[in-house]
Amino acid sequence: MSVQPEYALIVAGGKGTRMKASLPKQFLEIKGRPVLMHTIDAFYRYSRTIQVILVLPEEDRPTWEALCQQHAFTHPLQIVTGGASRFQSVQNGLRQIQGTGLVAIHDGVRPLIREDIIAASFRLAALQGSAVAAVRLKDSIRVTDQHHTRAVDRALYRLIQTPQTFRIDLIQQAYALPEDAMLTDDASVAERAGHTISLFEGSYDNLKITTPEDLIVAEALLNARQ
Amino acid sequence: MSVQPEYALIVAGGKGTRMKASLPKQFLEIKGRPVLMHTIDAFYRYSRTIQVILVLPEEDRPTWEALCQQHAFTHPLQIVTGGASRFQSVQNGLRQIQGTGLVAIHDGVRPLIREDIIAASFRLAALQGSAVAAVRLKDSIRVTDQHHTRAVDRALYRLIQTPQTFRIDLIQQAYALPEDAMLTDDASVAERAGHTISLFEGSYDNLKITTPEDLIVAEALLNARQ
Repeated sequence: MSVQPEYALIVAGGKGTRMKASLPKQFLEIKGRPVLMHTIDAFYRYSRTIQVILVLPEEDRPTWEALCQQHAFTHPLQIVTGGASRFQSVQNGLRQIQGTGLVAIHDGVRPLIREDIIAASFRLAALQGSAVAAVRLKDSIRVTDQHHTRAVDRALYRLIQTPQTFRIDLIQQAYALPEDAMLTDDASVAERAGHTISLFEGSYDNLKITTPEDLIVAEALLNARQ
Repeated sequence: MSVQPEYALIVAGGKGTRMKASLPKQFLEIKGRPVLMHTIDAFYRYSRTIQVILVLPEEDRPTWEALCQQHAFTHPLQIVTGGASRFQSVQNGLRQIQGTGLVAIHDGVRPLIREDIIAASFRLAALQGSAVAAVRLKDSIRVTDQHHTRAVDRALYRLIQTPQTFRIDLIQQAYALPEDAMLTDDASVAERAGHTISLFEGSYDNLKITTPEDLIVAEALLNARQ
């Protein structure tokens, strides 16, 4: 484990438009517990001393507080108000961190993240400055243009997950540059600022909850772990 | 529905090296029924008159026959011996088809394929000559070279599934050309022969069973459908 201070920045800003549910997807339940609590639990299982920053839209705060009461969720954490985009939410979260250390930026809706993956991300980021979870493609892949598609070599591609873990100074500087809608993850933001991105092997079960089916899958996978 | 004869060519050649099981993965059970039977069932649910060709390694045939007895699986189908590679297996299967029509080539280990997706593939292939199931990426994607990775625009990519459905003459001609290990699916083989590939919207739950977790996920998704 790194001797530097470690932070987890959990981004829970999504509106859940792809879910057939009025509740934002991070509040939907897996095995009777909200997705977002599963996610935060994993980081505290990894380390008792990690500092968790939760970025949450202002309007979702009452729901979150009610859920914390209901589920007796008492982990200490700092709540930061989300921005109009994921970029702005991460920016808001990073502004709360003073001093040096490492920060794992993680999707609130990836509740199946395992402690060994979190640990690997902090270890690699301590050495390389960045550590981004990635998996190989199981399927063939094609690239499209306006009219055609063509096969490309899937061995050359990686699907990117979170955590995406960085040296704090590095990622704070990267997020100090203007927003660009083309940058869909923290790795791209860091890359734009001139940093080389280190990937490490993620896990296929580190699923992002985006559809109702994903909740079912997540519950089955959690049941299988026990 | 197309008025042309319709075939399903089910490729069940895998050796299951990624599974922690001695039984080839197409024979492992989901809800008490072998994966491969779920797959074939789906095609017969789509059409009572579809002609199913099952490509199976010679050494797996006794196991398959025992399973058919055990599960009272009596759908009529033609069994063809698999080749040393997926390419050769598909080649062997296609050689059995005489005359015109459409053929849906499908992985034996994609048991969750739905009838509406099969129907869509035959409809599109009747119009365009090819119809390949594809889904958009949920995750960010990076392309790698020997030393670096860089972000690419995920909106330009599609993950490719099966069925991959073709006009029979078109795909038979494409498979008459020499094998090339770079061609990982039927769409690439057809493309190499000069054909333009038509994609259609697949389904995220049309999962390929490659790991033990996938069996758990498949069972949960099947349960949820009922």
